[in-house]
Amino acid sequence: MIIVLRPSASEKDIRVLTAKIRALGLSPHVSRGKERTVIPVIGDERVLAAVPLLSYPFVEKVLPVLAPYKLVSREFHPRTTVVRTRGLAVGEKRIALIAGPCSVENEAMIVRIAKAVKRAGATGLRGGAFKPRSSPYSFQGLGEEGLRYLAAARDATGLAVVTEVLDTRHVELVARYADVLQIGARNMQNFELLKEAGMSGKPVLLKRGLSATLKEFLQAAEYVVSRGNDQVMLCERGIRAIEDFTRNTFDLNALPVLRELTHLPLVADPSQATGKWSWVHPMSLAAVAAGADALIVEVHDRPEEARSDGEQSIVPARFAALVRAVRRVARAVGRTA
Amino acid sequence: MIIVLRPSASEKDIRVLTAKIRALGLSPHVSRGKERTVIPVIGDERVLAAVPLLSYPFVEKVLPVLAPYKLVSREFHPRTTVVRTRGLAVGEKRIALIAGPCSVENEAMIVRIAKAVKRAGATGLRGGAFKPRSSPYSFQGLGEEGLRYLAAARDATGLAVVTEVLDTRHVELVARYADVLQIGARNMQNFELLKEAGMSGKPVLLKRGLSATLKEFLQAAEYVVSRGNDQVMLCERGIRAIEDFTRNTFDLNALPVLRELTHLPLVADPSQATGKWSWVHPMSLAAVAAGADALIVEVHDRPEEARSDGEQSIVPARFAALVRAVRRVARAVGRTA
Amino acid sequence: MIIVLRPSASEKDIRVLTAKIRALGLSPHVSRGKERTVIPVIGDERVLAAVPLLSYPFVEKVLPVLAPYKLVSREFHPRTTVVRTRGLAVGEKRIALIAGPCSVENEAMIVRIAKAVKRAGATGLRGGAFKPRSSPYSFQGLGEEGLRYLAAARDATGLAVVTEVLDTRHVELVARYADVLQIGARNMQNFELLKEAGMSGKPVLLKRGLSATLKEFLQAAEYVVSRGNDQVMLCERGIRAIEDFTRNTFDLNALPVLRELTHLPLVADPSQATGKWSWVHPMSLAAVAAGADALIVEVHDRPEEARSDGEQSIVPARFAALVRAVRRVARAVGRTA
Amino acid sequence: MIIVLRPSASEKDIRVLTAKIRALGLSPHVSRGKERTVIPVIGDERVLAAVPLLSYPFVEKVLPVLAPYKLVSREFHPRTTVVRTRGLAVGEKRIALIAGPCSVENEAMIVRIAKAVKRAGATGLRGGAFKPRSSPYSFQGLGEEGLRYLAAARDATGLAVVTEVLDTRHVELVARYADVLQIGARNMQNFELLKEAGMSGKPVLLKRGLSATLKEFLQAAEYVVSRGNDQVMLCERGIRAIEDFTRNTFDLNALPVLRELTHLPLVADPSQATGKWSWVHPMSLAAVAAGADALIVEVHDRPEEARSDGEQSIVPARFAALVRAVRRVARAVGRTA
Repeated sequence: MIIVLRPSASEKDIRVLTAKIRALGLSPHVSRGKERTVIPVIGDERVLAAVPLLSYPFVEKVLPVLAPYKLVSREFHPRTTVVRTRGLAVGEKRIALIAGPCSVENEAMIVRIAKAVKRAGATGLRGGAFKPRSSPYSFQGLGEEGLRYLAAARDATGLAVVTEVLDTRHVELVARYADVLQIGARNMQNFELLKEAGMSGKPVLLKRGLSATLKEFLQAAEYVVSRGNDQVMLCERGIRAIEDFTRNTFDLNALPVLRELTHLPLVADPSQATGKWSWVHPMSLAAVAAGADALIVEVHDRPEEARSDGEQSIVPARFAALVRAVRRVARAVGRTA
Repeated sequence: MIIVLRPSASEKDIRVLTAKIRALGLSPHVSRGKERTVIPVIGDERVLAAVPLLSYPFVEKVLPVLAPYKLVSREFHPRTTVVRTRGLAVGEKRIALIAGPCSVENEAMIVRIAKAVKRAGATGLRGGAFKPRSSPYSFQGLGEEGLRYLAAARDATGLAVVTEVLDTRHVELVARYADVLQIGARNMQNFELLKEAGMSGKPVLLKRGLSATLKEFLQAAEYVVSRGNDQVMLCERGIRAIEDFTRNTFDLNALPVLRELTHLPLVADPSQATGKWSWVHPMSLAAVAAGADALIVEVHDRPEEARSDGEQSIVPARFAALVRAVRRVARAVGRTA
Repeated sequence: MIIVLRPSASEKDIRVLTAKIRALGLSPHVSRGKERTVIPVIGDERVLAAVPLLSYPFVEKVLPVLAPYKLVSREFHPRTTVVRTRGLAVGEKRIALIAGPCSVENEAMIVRIAKAVKRAGATGLRGGAFKPRSSPYSFQGLGEEGLRYLAAARDATGLAVVTEVLDTRHVELVARYADVLQIGARNMQNFELLKEAGMSGKPVLLKRGLSATLKEFLQAAEYVVSRGNDQVMLCERGIRAIEDFTRNTFDLNALPVLRELTHLPLVADPSQATGKWSWVHPMSLAAVAAGADALIVEVHDRPEEARSDGEQSIVPARFAALVRAVRRVARAVGRTA
Repeated sequence: MIIVLRPSASEKDIRVLTAKIRALGLSPHVSRGKERTVIPVIGDERVLAAVPLLSYPFVEKVLPVLAPYKLVSREFHPRTTVVRTRGLAVGEKRIALIAGPCSVENEAMIVRIAKAVKRAGATGLRGGAFKPRSSPYSFQGLGEEGLRYLAAARDATGLAVVTEVLDTRHVELVARYADVLQIGARNMQNFELLKEAGMSGKPVLLKRGLSATLKEFLQAAEYVVSRGNDQVMLCERGIRAIEDFTRNTFDLNALPVLRELTHLPLVADPSQATGKWSWVHPMSLAAVAAGADALIVEVHDRPEEARSDGEQSIVPARFAALVRAVRRVARAVGRTA
C-alpha cells in the first residue's frame, strides 16, 4: 500500500501516521518529493486496508499495491483449475457446452430439450427452477418440482445439471438435485449465499454482477473459495452500459484479463449478454475466440411460448449449427469443442 | 402495449399475431402506416408482457405503455405514504434524520453515538450488525450481539433502530430487535429477501441497487408491498457511473422523478453517495433541496478507528452543524427538520 | 410515432393534439384503452419529431417507431457497402487489416513500420499526424510534416493511408495526403467536422464515441452520408463502462447489431478497446468471429519509446503472428483475410 | 509517480528501469516488499508520464501521484477565480443566473425572452445560434443571423450574451457578438476548439462531456487556460449513466469535488441535466445547495413551439418563481442571488 500525503501535511502528521503503521507491524518508507510525500508500506497490506486512512485530513490518497483477493489469483495457484462433474469439464483444452431452457416448464419439455442439446454436443444442461425476476408478477419458477424434472432429464441423458440457487435456505435442497450451483448476476454480492455455496460441496458457476468490476467479481469468488470450495467457474454474461439495442454489453475483454488474474475457468453466456436469439451465434464464436472455456446457451424448442427469455433462446437446430461453428473456431484458436 | 412490425411482416403474420392477442382476451388495433404497421393492444398489458413477442421474426419492437409496477405507483395511491415507527416519521413535511455509525462495534460506542445524534436532532439510529463486505477478509459485523447493542442504544435514547438484514434466515431475528429493516444496495434484487421483508411486519428501508434503473427500483419495492407491507422507504444512495473521485454518483434527479412516480417516501444517503466525509455536508443540503423526506448519515466519534467506512463518517459536532444547516434549507423549500 | 397520454388527459386535450397533428399533414389514430389513450400517428414521423410534444403536460411519453437515420440504414440500401481505396477494400468477404503506429514520429520509423505491416499482410497503414490528447502537455503530433511522412510510406509500400483529422480547417490539407480520413471517438459528434468530411471526396473511418449509443453512431454517419459521401466505415473501438483493468469496454455486440441496422462496413480496433498489447491478439480474433470486416491495429517496433500508446502497441513479429491467426479464424467463419 | 513491478521482475529489469528514470533527470527510490517491488520516483512526473512504462512486461502498474493539470488547480491558485463580463459575475458570493431559450428563433422572441429573464433577475442571456444536433435533419440554428439577434437582445437589456461555438472557423465570428463563448458537452474534447477559445480573449463556459471524468474535464479546461485565458467557468450538465427517465444524470457531487480541486467557478445546468421542465425547479435548488456559483436555465415563452428542447424549457413565470426560491436557498447556505 502506498500513502500519498497532501502538500499541507506536517512533519508531526508524518510522525503520527508512521507510528500508527509501525504499531500494526508494518514498515513505512517515507519518500519526500518536491510536491508530495509518499509512503510505501512494506508488509501485509490487508492489515492496513482495514484502517480508514482517508479519514485523516492530511492523507490525499491511498494506492493499494496488491489485489484484494488471494486464493483465486493465478499468482497463488499458477495452473488453470479444471472444474469437473459427470461428463462436464470446464478449463480444459476442450471447450464445454452447457445448454437448455431459461426455465424448467414441465418434465416433458426439459427431457426433450436435454436430449436435443446432448445430441448436438452439450455436456451440461441448464434450466432454472428458482427464477430471479424483476417483477413479482412474473413466473417465479417451479421450485422443487422443477429440480425433480431436471434430475429426470439428467437420468435420461447423463448431462450435468446446472441450476440457479437464490436463497441460502435452498442451498441444501438445490445441491441435492444439481451438479453445479449457479449464482446469478443479481446475487453476485449476496455474500451469505456465496458462503453457503462455498460449503455446499458442489461446483459453483458464478455470474458476474450487472455492474461488477472484475476486482469485485474475483472478490465474490474469493468468498466461495475461502470456504473450502475451489470448484468455481466465472461467467461473463454482459454488464450494464449505455447501449440499449442489446440487453447487456458483453464484456469479452474480461476473458483475457481474467485469464491473467485468476486460475478459475471461464464461461461466457451469449444469450443474456445479447438478449436476442439472432445475435447469439456470432457472439458465441467471439467468446470462443476471446478464450472462453465454456459457453452456456439458452435453447428452447418453442421460444414463442417460453415462460421466460423466449426472445433470446435459439431452437435446437440452430444450436446444433452453432456447435459445428464453435468447433471450427475452437480449432482455429488451438482448442477443440 | 404497442407492437411494431418489421416492414417484411406479411398479412398472414398479422393474422397469426392478432389471433394470439385475442386468445389472451385482449384487443389488437392494427394501424397500417406507410413504413410500418403498429398494433396498440387494449387490455391488461401485463398478460401480454409474459409472451416473448420478440421471438417472432416479424416483430421489430414491443413498446410498453404502462409501468410494470402498480401498488407502489402514485397513480394507484395518490397521497404520499408516511412511514412511522417510534419517533421516526418519514414522508411528512418535517424532514427526518437517521444517523449513526456504519457498523456497531461495541455497546459503549453505539450508545454514546446514539446519544450524540439524538441530541443533535436525529429521530432514527443507523448501525450495522450484519455487514455486506466486498471482501471475505473484512469485518463482517457483530451479528446478534450487535443487534443487542442497538436495542440498548434505543432503550437509552428512544431512537428508532434502522439496521440491515442480509439473509432470509435472519429476517425474523433482525425484526426482533430492529424498528426498520434495511435492505442494502447489493440486495436490491435479492427477491427472496424482499419477499421475507414484505412479510416481516416491519417498515423497510430499501436502498437502490448500484446500477438499478428507477423502474427496477420500483419493481423491487413492489415485491415488498405485494406481500402486504406498504411501509417502504426508497433510499437513493448513489449509483455506479464513470466518476471515480467519488465512491458513487449521487443521482438526485431520482428524487423529483420518484416523487412523480410513487407514493413511497424518499430517503437520501449522502455518506455512501459521496464516500468522503468532507462532501457529506453540501450533498445533504442538496438532497433536501431536491426533495428528500429523510437523510441517513454516517456518524462516528473516532472515524480514524472505525471498523468500516471511517473515511465517509462525520463526527458528532459536524453532524450537529449539518442539522442546523438542514433546518435552514428545509425552511427555504417550505419544509421543516 | 406513438403518443401516450396521461390518465388525466381530457377530451379537449385530445382535440388540441390531434388538430395539431393534422395541421402537420399527418393522421392521428386515437386508440382509447382502459388505463391510457395512445395515438399512433401515420405519416413521416420526422415532421413530428421536431415538435416538443412532451412540453404538453397531458403527454406522458412519445415513442418513435422509425429509426432517426435513413441513408445509412440497411432498409434504405440492402447490400453491404464496400469501401475501396488503393489496395484497401472493407466490406468484402476478405477481412482487411489496417496497421501502424499510433503517431507518426519521423519518416524512417513510419516507412520501416509500413514495410513490416505490409509484409505481414496489411493493406492499410494507420498513423496519426494530428493527435487528440487529453492533456495539452502531451505530444500533439507532427502535423503536416507527419502527413508528408505518411505519403512517403505509402509511396514505399502502396498501402492506403488512414489518418485522423481533428479540425474543420485541416480537412482539405489532410485529404491531400490521406486515402481515408479518420474521425476519432472524441469528435464523433463534432458535427461541423462530419459535414466537412462528407464533402471531402475521401472515404471516412468514423470511430464510435466514448459513450455513444449505436443510434447516435448511425446518426453521426448519416451526417457524412447526407453530404453525398457514402464511403463510410464504422469503427467499434470500445466504450466507457465500469471496468478499469481495460482502457475501454470492447462492445463486440455492436458488430452483429450494426450489421442488421446498416449497410456500412464494420471495423474493430482492439488496441484502443483493450489498452494493453497482450490483450490485442485474443480480442482481434474475437472481433473477427463477431463479424468485423476489418481490424485496425497499433503496431510499433519500439513500443517502450513510442510517443503515444506504446503500452497498447504490438511489435511487428506479433502482428505477423496475429495475421496468421486472423486467417485461421476468418476461414472458420466462412471468410478470408 | 509510483511504479509497481510484477513479482517476476528481475534485478536486471530493475537496473534497466532505474537507469532509464535517471536518464530523464528523475530519482527512483526502490522499495522492496515481500510481494512486490515498488519504485516511487522523485521529480516532475509529467516527464515520466510521456514514457509508456506499461510496455515493459515486468511493470505491473503505474500510479500517478500528481494531478495531470496544473494551471486550473487550486493548489496552483488558491483563491476562486471570478469570471466577469458586463453585469455577469460568476464565482462571487452572489449566485448568478443565466437564462434564455435553447435556440435563437427570431429577433422578436429573443428580445422578448431576454427582457423577461432580466426582469426576473438574470444577468446572463443564453441562446444558441450554432446548434449541435444529433440528427442532420434537425434545426441547426440561424448562424450569424442568430448572433445578430442576440446582440440586439443585449442592447435591449444589458444582459451578457452566452452562446455556443462549434467550429474553430467560427470562433472569431462568435467572439465578435458574444460576451461568453460556450463550448458544449460534445466538444469538451475538441482540443483544437479549446485552443482557439483560449486565444479568443473572451470568457469561456465549458460544459462537461457526456461521459467525461472530472480529471478529463479539468484537463480540457487546462487547454483553454494554457493558451492564456483563465476566464473559464466549468458547467456540470449531467452525465450519461444508466437512468433513462431523465435525459442525463445530474452529477451534483461534482460541485464540492471540483471546488476542492480547482479555482475555476462552477455553473450548473438543470435543464440539460434533467431533460424535463417539471424537474428543473427542484434540481436548480439542489445545485445551489451543493455549491453552484451560477445556474444556466432554459426559458421559452412558448415551449410547445420551440425549435429545440421545448420539453425542458420553463416559461418566464416559472423562471421568476424559481429565482425567488433560489434566493431563499442561497440565503440558507450563506450566499445571495
